[in-house]
Amino acid sequence: MASTKVNTDLQNERDKCTFNVEELTNFLDEGSHNTKSRRELEKKVLSVKGIRDEIPEDYLSHKEKYENAVRKSVLLYKALKDYNRNDISLEEKIRGNLRNVIASAILKDNSPFMLHGAMFMIAITGQATDEQKKYWLKRAENMEIMGTYAQTELGHGTFLRGLETQATYDANTEEFILHSPTLSSYKWWPGGLAHTANYCVVMAQLYIKDKNYGIQPFIVQIRDEETHMPLPGIHVGEIGPKLGFNTVNNGFLGFNHVRIPRDSMLMKNAQVLKDGTFKASTTNSKLVYGTMVYVRVTIVNSASTYLARAVTIAIRYAAIRRQSQLKNGEPEPQILDYVTQQHKLIIAIATTHAYHFTVRWLWDLYVKVNKELGRGQLDNLPELHSLACALKVVSSTDCTALIEKCRLACGGHGYMLSSCLPSLYGVSTATCTYEGENTVLLLQVARSLVKAWGQALKGQPLSPSMAYLADKSPSTTWDGTLDGIIKSFQKVGKGKLSASVSSLEQYRASGLSPEDAWNKASIQLTAAAEAHARVIVLTVYKTEVERKTAALSPPLRAVLHQLLELYFVFWTLEKMGDLLLYTNLSEKDIRVLQKRYEDLLEKIRPNAVGLVDGFDFRDEVLNSTLGAYDGRAYERLMEEALKSPLNAEPVNQSFDKYLKPFLRGKL
Amino acid sequence: MASTKVNTDLQNERDKCTFNVEELTNFLDEGSHNTKSRRELEKKVLSVKGIRDEIPEDYLSHKEKYENAVRKSVLLYKALKDYNRNDISLEEKIRGNLRNVIASAILKDNSPFMLHGAMFMIAITGQATDEQKKYWLKRAENMEIMGTYAQTELGHGTFLRGLETQATYDANTEEFILHSPTLSSYKWWPGGLAHTANYCVVMAQLYIKDKNYGIQPFIVQIRDEETHMPLPGIHVGEIGPKLGFNTVNNGFLGFNHVRIPRDSMLMKNAQVLKDGTFKASTTNSKLVYGTMVYVRVTIVNSASTYLARAVTIAIRYAAIRRQSQLKNGEPEPQILDYVTQQHKLIIAIATTHAYHFTVRWLWDLYVKVNKELGRGQLDNLPELHSLACALKVVSSTDCTALIEKCRLACGGHGYMLSSCLPSLYGVSTATCTYEGENTVLLLQVARSLVKAWGQALKGQPLSPSMAYLADKSPSTTWDGTLDGIIKSFQKVGKGKLSASVSSLEQYRASGLSPEDAWNKASIQLTAAAEAHARVIVLTVYKTEVERKTAALSPPLRAVLHQLLELYFVFWTLEKMGDLLLYTNLSEKDIRVLQKRYEDLLEKIRPNAVGLVDGFDFRDEVLNSTLGAYDGRAYERLMEEALKSPLNAEPVNQSFDKYLKPFLRGKL
Repeated sequence: MASTKVNTDLQNERDKCTFNVEELTNFLDEGSHNTKSRRELEKKVLSVKGIRDEIPEDYLSHKEKYENAVRKSVLLYKALKDYNRNDISLEEKIRGNLRNVIASAILKDNSPFMLHGAMFMIAITGQATDEQKKYWLKRAENMEIMGTYAQTELGHGTFLRGLETQATYDANTEEFILHSPTLSSYKWWPGGLAHTANYCVVMAQLYIKDKNYGIQPFIVQIRDEETHMPLPGIHVGEIGPKLGFNTVNNGFLGFNHVRIPRDSMLMKNAQVLKDGTFKASTTNSKLVYGTMVYVRVTIVNSASTYLARAVTIAIRYAAIRRQSQLKNGEPEPQILDYVTQQHKLIIAIATTHAYHFTVRWLWDLYVKVNKELGRGQLDNLPELHSLACALKVVSSTDCTALIEKCRLACGGHGYMLSSCLPSLYGVSTATCTYEGENTVLLLQVARSLVKAWGQALKGQPLSPSMAYLADKSPSTTWDGTLDGIIKSFQKVGKGKLSASVSSLEQYRASGLSPEDAWNKASIQLTAAAEAHARVIVLTVYKTEVERKTAALSPPLRAVLHQLLELYFVFWTLEKMGDLLLYTNLSEKDIRVLQKRYEDLLEKIRPNAVGLVDGFDFRDEVLNSTLGAYDGRAYERLMEEALKSPLNAEPVNQSFDKYLKPFLRGKL
Repeated sequence: MASTKVNTDLQNERDKCTFNVEELTNFLDEGSHNTKSRRELEKKVLSVKGIRDEIPEDYLSHKEKYENAVRKSVLLYKALKDYNRNDISLEEKIRGNLRNVIASAILKDNSPFMLHGAMFMIAITGQATDEQKKYWLKRAENMEIMGTYAQTELGHGTFLRGLETQATYDANTEEFILHSPTLSSYKWWPGGLAHTANYCVVMAQLYIKDKNYGIQPFIVQIRDEETHMPLPGIHVGEIGPKLGFNTVNNGFLGFNHVRIPRDSMLMKNAQVLKDGTFKASTTNSKLVYGTMVYVRVTIVNSASTYLARAVTIAIRYAAIRRQSQLKNGEPEPQILDYVTQQHKLIIAIATTHAYHFTVRWLWDLYVKVNKELGRGQLDNLPELHSLACALKVVSSTDCTALIEKCRLACGGHGYMLSSCLPSLYGVSTATCTYEGENTVLLLQVARSLVKAWGQALKGQPLSPSMAYLADKSPSTTWDGTLDGIIKSFQKVGKGKLSASVSSLEQYRASGLSPEDAWNKASIQLTAAAEAHARVIVLTVYKTEVERKTAALSPPLRAVLHQLLELYFVFWTLEKMGDLLLYTNLSEKDIRVLQKRYEDLLEKIRPNAVGLVDGFDFRDEVLNSTLGAYDGRAYERLMEEALKSPLNAEPVNQSFDKYLKPFLRGKL
């Protein structure tokens, strides 16, 4: 690039920031040592020769994108390999990696190797016997084999029991016969499955002597290790282009009576003996929840990280873009000075903070409950499960919506792929669907809420996150403090749940079956579940900010508290209707809240750039013409356009082939 | 395709539909003769040899997509050419074409020729003198030249006065000198500009003897007609990949002191004489609004048509997808039977109807006001302008959001590009930004509302769409009839406007300048403008349904009224907070409304498939694996995947190049 001078407007923003940006970064990293090691890793990965694209991937064909992704994934894997520390626990490692997104600088649409570590090895760890683990984990860790995890089918996703792939035990040969009886039973979606993986954990219906024993995991070789040819009876390929994840090589897989040895079943939780006797472990069946919770925690984390990237881009662009006139004769203002623009973007910063704290709180709870599970103590598992569902839903929904708001706030240029905003939306919106579709999860949360409601009525004890449902304190006048707002949101949660339960009862009384009544009241039930999730996020965000910012310097603490307050006031105005119904909020209070919100925007505005700088995303991670640190958005837009293969020739061949004959009336 | 049998579930839906689907189609087409001619055209276009893709475009590289689009655009243009009827007026022609979307079956991401007719010729028509028109329109109509329209620059979009491109008159040579003084002055975005067009209407700042005469239009040759090489001083190319419109060939354009003859300026509205004297027409300057309104009407139309396509796909898929269990031992239900699914999709059907009626009403108003303009009568122009702004905003916002809801309602498969839902979102969301960014337009509407508010206070007459602002009737108890709901939404519109004006005044009183006060209250002002738009849509939808459905058969009329009522109840619940504030709506009323909404979903559910069948989109237009008429979604997903070039070989070359050495530890 010709110049590295920072845009003047952006420099001015940095000059007027009231806090130390490095202090914020260290705070988000939970320690300056973490910031240091993260930056070292980033530097190391980015210094690998050939690891960055010269021509942006978006210009390539679907096939070329895949081939390039395999090439880069190999380089990336090797660069990250030595980084695995052995002096800390896995839990600490994962927590320490919550802010490590360097892989996205290399593969913005993710890697075809993604499910090898993220699901294949995790499935083996969770579901294989010690002996199986010893053999398979070693091969997988050494990258002698490449694996993936095949569960979802063309015809079934969230409803696991509906899976159709069959594994029929043949005691004569001591083999399972894997078979796909229908087109809809084809596995569909697993990352890396299409042309990358040669092994696969397959979830299938176990049949022994015509009896069904439910879904069990099997490890299956699908391609020859030497030639990579699909093995006999295996029909494997890719599912085609998607809104995102186009370098992940999502595949389909069908079996035509494929025989695999008995020990291919992962037998930690259930065993099939040689003679066909089935033995299920009774205590371990709930442990599978642990993995699901783990994955949902990572979703809360990635949703908020995607949003942090999006808002970094949008805030920096809003600082350098000048447009229109507020006052005659004055220069065009930065669009960040428009209050409507602040309204779109500053809540996005606050939301990344809210989920930043929430995901760490949830992770610590997960670690705690997991330890209890190790001791055979299961009582906190339902609470954890319900919290993870609720938080997965609101984090994915909120962050995806705000990423799109960030994109739209960048006007036409946000529509350019080179802004990176469309691809952030693509990967983020997928989190609303995978690992439990959001509406389905809300209905699961609603089930636990309705159950708790019944317990509360009977005076039985409730889990900590639902304890407020038993609160019987009367409504008082509106209290606009943060604690007062939490109390009011609790009243909303209670009120909406109570209304749903009434509807359920009325539909029952009108003659509907319990299932039909549940279905008919399900819109209200999902709304009640969402209201419950709002209580959790507000509570955790406030508690954690107050707990963790005490040691910070006053200027930083002040701005983090302003963001917290803004978040509370924003959601109060957003849920005004519910609050009017279930609390004593008045029209006058709303006017006060609206003014308070407008004043908070004005207070935070001068620190907006400092706040996003504090996320400390390298330009390579942002990968955005609009959001780079130097603010040279127009220059970068042009530089990126000039890389287009279409721009390599002044006249495209289509002119002579089609256009010229057409304009001469000859075509 | 192997089988053309219709999916049984879908057939059952059609069997139980209570109305005649063909009657609905004819009604939407405004006459069976229109249905007939639309279908004939569709058939004719689709029968052109080579006009449909064999390999889906999504597998191609960016460059290949363009070349393929030029090839197909030529075929499409020729197929459509003979269709131009001369026996009806242009207004009737446009109206008759509101439901003609056959071009999207050929180019789902639009054509590089798009702006030739849509903007280049319209600009010449509106801004050229008769003599200029005679010469240029003839060449353009005969397709001897290919044009586009270059207004937006890298640094300026909505704020026209900020454009930087210069046209400096040199009286010595009787030429204009076109120049791009900065990078940000480069034209950026025009469709077809990159490698397709050889002529261009360029909007530039006119300078004569160092004096600025504002933005004027110039017709400029940019490429040689014979060789297609860019002419000297012209820097032209493409801007790169985007979220959508990737076959449109959006380009950039910079000028380095390019001289063009004096008669290149389009001089209908202003003239530069040979000696450099500038003469502006005083009466015509407002006429440019007419074109802007026309374009915004087409946006309301395309937004609702995109949504109609999306909901057709989602409803059909929801009818054939079976998932989970509502009741033990029963088969998995169609997901359309889940009330949460109905909640997502049925409002989308109602919304297409709402905007279907609204756009036709708006078009008729446009034609009427345009006729008045021809007679020099300008008084209804501000009202029309404000209505077009408001309706452009809510239609693009609502339809885009609902398209995304349709996609998410299709679960993982909605994420496949072959569902067509991602690309519908891509083209639809662009309508929120182009031709006036939505927030900017809402603030323009707010200006006219604040002005009207002042007039109302003074007892001055208001334009018809704002007359309700002067209504002083007291609040009575909640009235849940459709008329009652409209009255209540009017109270909300009034209440929010009144609150915004109070805030404005308070900010003024606190010492802010008028501009700063306006800015600080702008969140409330945009909300007031949106509330006004809701009043319009509800009013028009109801009036038009009542006016137009009288002659329909009772079963069809019944279902169209159910949709209307559902739309009203949905929005009442959606805007509950505002209604609680500004009307006498009570908690009990809300419970009644919620039940009414749930009952309406149940009533409409059996006709859901019939309602989307009534839109009468051919499979080629839907272009969706999930939404075809026969409901063979899983088969089509697989058929489409098998077209992937990656699936043409069992082993991709990346295995030998990268993966195998890596798995052997050698890379």
